[in-house]
Amino acid sequence: MNATHSTDGFFLSRLCVIGVGLIGGSLALALKRSGCVGRVIGWDADGDNLMRAKQLGIVDEVAGSCRDAVADADVVVLAVPVRRMAEVAASVLPVMKSTAILTDTGSVKGTVVEAIEPLAEAARRWFVAGHPISGTEKSGAEAAFAELYRSKRCILTPTQGTNPQALEVITRLWQMAGSDVVLMDVVKHDRILAAISHLPHMIAYALVNSVSSYDQYPENILEYSAGGFRDFTRIASSDPVMWRDIALDNRDALLEMIEQFEAFLAELKDDIRQRKSEQLEAFFLNSKLSRDAILTPR
Amino acid sequence: MNATHSTDGFFLSRLCVIGVGLIGGSLALALKRSGCVGRVIGWDADGDNLMRAKQLGIVDEVAGSCRDAVADADVVVLAVPVRRMAEVAASVLPVMKSTAILTDTGSVKGTVVEAIEPLAEAARRWFVAGHPISGTEKSGAEAAFAELYRSKRCILTPTQGTNPQALEVITRLWQMAGSDVVLMDVVKHDRILAAISHLPHMIAYALVNSVSSYDQYPENILEYSAGGFRDFTRIASSDPVMWRDIALDNRDALLEMIEQFEAFLAELKDDIRQRKSEQLEAFFLNSKLSRDAILTPR
Repeated sequence: MNATHSTDGFFLSRLCVIGVGLIGGSLALALKRSGCVGRVIGWDADGDNLMRAKQLGIVDEVAGSCRDAVADADVVVLAVPVRRMAEVAASVLPVMKSTAILTDTGSVKGTVVEAIEPLAEAARRWFVAGHPISGTEKSGAEAAFAELYRSKRCILTPTQGTNPQALEVITRLWQMAGSDVVLMDVVKHDRILAAISHLPHMIAYALVNSVSSYDQYPENILEYSAGGFRDFTRIASSDPVMWRDIALDNRDALLEMIEQFEAFLAELKDDIRQRKSEQLEAFFLNSKLSRDAILTPR
Repeated sequence: MNATHSTDGFFLSRLCVIGVGLIGGSLALALKRSGCVGRVIGWDADGDNLMRAKQLGIVDEVAGSCRDAVADADVVVLAVPVRRMAEVAASVLPVMKSTAILTDTGSVKGTVVEAIEPLAEAARRWFVAGHPISGTEKSGAEAAFAELYRSKRCILTPTQGTNPQALEVITRLWQMAGSDVVLMDVVKHDRILAAISHLPHMIAYALVNSVSSYDQYPENILEYSAGGFRDFTRIASSDPVMWRDIALDNRDALLEMIEQFEAFLAELKDDIRQRKSEQLEAFFLNSKLSRDAILTPR
């Protein structure tokens, strides 16, 4: 155990991480480094990934099943794809310690909270929904690193049914991983994430498909793309299954944001078609000012 | 003069750069470093920028007017905004040396070639249209650096009227700056650039305006954006006037590409609305495969 950082008395003897990919693996690494966890027990539906997590020192022990993994854990972190959250929660909640807390890292909170809260209540266990606002386009245990959450926001979405003590523990857990914790309403979370994360992913995927399908010339015109295009479309290299699930789970908020974006693009197209020089310059300038403003330190 | 690189006998005694911002300034720096130019004479409509270019060693001499700047130059590079190209060309062509070559760096080639070719013919001077596929979201002399063009493509768009010797000189010039030179038809250039550069800029500008205009919550939701959104929208910090001009000059190709993109986004939206799980996964996977393919070394 590395105790070089002050944990202010916060300590978990056993942490269980279900799903030891980029998100779950990085959380385990960050908490180990902070010195606030004793042993980390891991489980993953992908046995090869689980073995890599063990080899990489992300987890101290691997379990044979998710039910075995949660035994004696103080906190159980679900870091599986959003569509698998409810199924795994249903399986582990009844066998968790009575004082243990279940938390998740799903990118969508509405469907996850709606599914897991009744299960947790029925099992008389504590549940706190969470979502760290960080990630890369990579996935798997080998992509995990301890600094992923440093100075990044982590949004927790407590409801009226959330136990305040459990909320405090999960808040401390993410702070120990380096995050700035923000509490937010579930619906607001899903709308904000639709706007700042899910919509850009949909746009990047649609852009790459649109450009690579352009068939006026024999060669693939993507070959001519320079650094700007590559940076812009980096997020289109993200995991297709994960994004399928996010798109389906956050369907309503995402459709709202796509339509808002379509209206802005239609306005821009109209200005170009009608050669509205002043409107175009104002449109680009407004955007530049908004973009530049988010670069200033908060 | 720095002659550490072999110039294979390629040498220009006097190079004139009109517009010493990121593009023109970086070309001057790259050619100076390669040892293939004697003296660089600069002019810029922005007197402060011209003085900075002199102080930064981008140009050796500054001229009082663009007509003065071109005197005795072997090659004159126009690196001004696309909408100013024709006006500056009309002014300098008649006073250039009879053996001098005019070239440009404009992001749109159709309107530039259409305007300058007749002027060059009337003045009996050589003109070669070009466009280096590189840049950053920054502008001005202080943003210039000698490595900007290294291993990047530079597209030249000769027409039937282009002199082959002049084309050879401009090809060598960009090769000396480190570029891979590609020859291409004007219309094809404008369509490809609309797809891989102009369309992504329009999308980034529309995305930032769309998200920053979301008014369901009192705070600006851009505040919650993480690294992914910031990287994705980097190009929305580009110069509004430059992009207004590009949008207007490449109007037809850009409208074609925006509409192709809109069709792909509409298909995606439809799949989300109708919860078409398999189609969504295939859409994202196709995009990921196309995106990943352009990362492999060419």
